[in-house]
Amino acid sequence: MKASIEQAFGREIRKAREKLGRSQEGLAFDAEVHRTYIGMIERGQKSPTLGVILRLARALNLKPSELVRRAEARFEKSNPWI
Amino acid sequence: MKASIEQAFGREIRKAREKLGRSQEGLAFDAEVHRTYIGMIERGQKSPTLGVILRLARALNLKPSELVRRAEARFEKSNPWI
Repeated sequence: MKASIEQAFGREIRKAREKLGRSQEGLAFDAEVHRTYIGMIERGQKSPTLGVILRLARALNLKPSELVRRAEARFEKSNPWI
Repeated sequence: MKASIEQAFGREIRKAREKLGRSQEGLAFDAEVHRTYIGMIERGQKSPTLGVILRLARALNLKPSELVRRAEARFEKSNPWI
């Protein structure tokens, strides 16, 4: 199934969040974004800005580039001919 | 001098663009964004979305994560105590 880079990013955010046993609320608080925004990000319904990517990465103890690398790998895997 | 992640990203976009000898217009065309938007990105006045980061990376023959990694390295260098 084809997925957008936003969907791939959202899946990786959810995976990293659940690995830490965090709720969407907890992540939203730490990253200083609205709780409903985390839900939209995780479902790939919003394209996060670089500033939001940085805050999410900090809240998840990851580098922004690592988050993007994971999303990119998932995205490439789901779009092998692009 | 302290710089935002957006300013660091903008500097890296400009550097990568100039390395390829591209104009802002040419990059804007390939990345399918408005020319004035490239200027704002390069000056750090806009926080690009993940979708725009992907399109800029493709137009510059770089991986999105590599662009973010460069911005991150520049950002960390300018904010050593964060």
